[in-house]
Amino acid sequence: MALLEPIEYEDASREVRAVYDDIRATRNTDFVNNFWKVLAHDPATLARTWAAAKQVMAGGALDPLTKELVYIAVSVTNNCEYCIHSHTAAARAKGMTTQMWTELMAVTALANQTNRIANGYRIDVDERFRAPLAP
Amino acid sequence: MALLEPIEYEDASREVRAVYDDIRATRNTDFVNNFWKVLAHDPATLARTWAAAKQVMAGGALDPLTKELVYIAVSVTNNCEYCIHSHTAAARAKGMTTQMWTELMAVTALANQTNRIANGYRIDVDERFRAPLAP
Amino acid sequence: MALLEPIEYEDASREVRAVYDDIRATRNTDFVNNFWKVLAHDPATLARTWAAAKQVMAGGALDPLTKELVYIAVSVTNNCEYCIHSHTAAARAKGMTTQMWTELMAVTALANQTNRIANGYRIDVDERFRAPLAP
Amino acid sequence: MALLEPIEYEDASREVRAVYDDIRATRNTDFVNNFWKVLAHDPATLARTWAAAKQVMAGGALDPLTKELVYIAVSVTNNCEYCIHSHTAAARAKGMTTQMWTELMAVTALANQTNRIANGYRIDVDERFRAPLAP
Amino acid sequence: MALLEPIEYEDASREVRAVYDDIRATRNTDFVNNFWKVLAHDPATLARTWAAAKQVMAGGALDPLTKELVYIAVSVTNNCEYCIHSHTAAARAKGMTTQMWTELMAVTALANQTNRIANGYRIDVDERFRAPLAP
Amino acid sequence: MALLEPIEYEDASREVRAVYDDIRATRNTDFVNNFWKVLAHDPATLARTWAAAKQVMAGGALDPLTKELVYIAVSVTNNCEYCIHSHTAAARAKGMTTQMWTELMAVTALANQTNRIANGYRIDVDERFRAPLAP
Repeated sequence: MALLEPIEYEDASREVRAVYDDIRATRNTDFVNNFWKVLAHDPATLARTWAAAKQVMAGGALDPLTKELVYIAVSVTNNCEYCIHSHTAAARAKGMTTQMWTELMAVTALANQTNRIANGYRIDVDERFRAPLAP
Repeated sequence: MALLEPIEYEDASREVRAVYDDIRATRNTDFVNNFWKVLAHDPATLARTWAAAKQVMAGGALDPLTKELVYIAVSVTNNCEYCIHSHTAAARAKGMTTQMWTELMAVTALANQTNRIANGYRIDVDERFRAPLAP
Repeated sequence: MALLEPIEYEDASREVRAVYDDIRATRNTDFVNNFWKVLAHDPATLARTWAAAKQVMAGGALDPLTKELVYIAVSVTNNCEYCIHSHTAAARAKGMTTQMWTELMAVTALANQTNRIANGYRIDVDERFRAPLAP
Repeated sequence: MALLEPIEYEDASREVRAVYDDIRATRNTDFVNNFWKVLAHDPATLARTWAAAKQVMAGGALDPLTKELVYIAVSVTNNCEYCIHSHTAAARAKGMTTQMWTELMAVTALANQTNRIANGYRIDVDERFRAPLAP
Repeated sequence: MALLEPIEYEDASREVRAVYDDIRATRNTDFVNNFWKVLAHDPATLARTWAAAKQVMAGGALDPLTKELVYIAVSVTNNCEYCIHSHTAAARAKGMTTQMWTELMAVTALANQTNRIANGYRIDVDERFRAPLAP
Repeated sequence: MALLEPIEYEDASREVRAVYDDIRATRNTDFVNNFWKVLAHDPATLARTWAAAKQVMAGGALDPLTKELVYIAVSVTNNCEYCIHSHTAAARAKGMTTQMWTELMAVTALANQTNRIANGYRIDVDERFRAPLAP
């Protein structure tokens, strides 16, 4: 049970309503999910986090679906139940099939496995892997 | 410093050489990176892990580059230095640009942030997010 | 459901009762929470852990409320549901307001975010940050 | 070694310089640390992350030093070397003594320990701990 | 609730049935637990993961019970509820007593505690601990 | 580089020397490793942590070597470089062979992998796994 109750639109301050309105407009739906309605108890964090999510998750060099998949992989690694469910729903809405999801789980599990082999054996980074990225 | 020295091809058993040969053939290069050369001290795990990586990271419903990006995101979340370097190199070889990489970092960081908001506030999963995936 | 049932005072050994008595006296309440009543199945760990908690969480250079806030931040990062609830209750008893709690969540989330940026980009520690603490 | 080189002021775009200027003005120093100079390769994330840090870490219901302590505790839990060093330096600048730091480590270590006891034994949350926070 | 329903034997493909049959034969029981029945939605991952578990968890230089204990310790550290329950059951079937389990929890909690002390204080590895393992 | 310098025996307070003496007597060696020499800056935590380690890591229902293996598995999962090195050395002194160590890595990696499959698919705990342990 959430430590703070969701704040519904009709009970929200003007500042919070502005965020809810932008969520609805951006997503083209009336639905606002619990994450935002609970975070509304801290209006500054609500506004800042929504603005960040809107900016980061939008299409850029990576498309929005790829970003959702990355998001799910992190949430599975950290075991965030809420985030797994909400971003799996978001990814489906953006075209993720069940096969894409099961492959995503396989990659996530593999990385968690090999991360421990590399860290446990204390494997030295190969010289050629140390080249910096091009600016 | 690695707890076990890399095993070079000329010092490897036939079983280990077979894996090195398959790595080289699959990747179309003579280079075998330290991860495999250190893991060669446990030939069964070497063979099993390489077979898994080859199968899981190949193109399927998700393309190989997307899989590399997911892999990096998990490795950053777990702070596996070796894996961040080696899979960043692999992703670059598959076409990842620096802008894709910086966007990947932004999504990974955002997810790690919001995972804690959801877990900290103990936010209840919305009913509509609970629908199972289609089989 | 706990893997071992809580042990109530009337069913406890003398050794366990001594710990319960000290918990009650230290906290000035009759209530002993499930953490200790389940841990009572391992009396040595019960006694050692309670002694450690009593010593570490008491006021020193840091006041008890600050310590509770730190405790919550760690528990949120690790997603320990029991610990989030029990130490949020403890912090409230020591004067934490809801606004303090929401600010605590914001700092915890920010740190989890920027930790991954620093680790992902593999940012070098600035020379001036390497100075050791004064003994 | 960072995957991207720090961008110095003289090589930075106007957008990035504006952030550097605000960091300097806010902190009343000419020094800009590597975190921001590397993140400058992604100007949008640089601006967003700095704005978030500035807002979240400022005094509110929690004072700035308490927020630094929480930040360090999370960074230790996640093992972010850069963040441990940079925020230990920041906390010292805000008045943290070595004794406060050692107590902080003790609380952080204790929480990481008891988090696993609670999760491992699967201890049920006491009814009285489930009360929501006051809005 | 699982994101995908368990697949029962009678509804399974021939490929999946072959894995179920091997699980039953290896464990000498008719029971197949949910982990495998849900993973059956990805038959390649099911077969690969079962083969890995069968190989890794079998007796070698370490006996099967010791391996189960290690498995539980990792699962507690990561807070995997399913894995804690399933491998605690497996360990019991292999002879783990309750006292062994409570000692296992104590070691797991201690390691999680001291890991943060070592990482937080940034303690340098003693020269004599750096000796590589014998090949 | 450690944030606090190791405190050598000749510079230590009587309280700290007593702990060093007990470490030496218990381990039957003159060597005191950096972990304790750095932690000596917080004498109460030094004494408490050493007493806990001495008690928890001693033989009981689990033998000392098994406990070291569990300790390493946790340290690998959390990526504590210091702890991996120091407890690998400790385990070797107690009879761990290289093959035992490579099997330990394989189990640790497998558990980290399957933990994410179970958490990612949100697999329901089988009814028969929920039975509590015998008191």
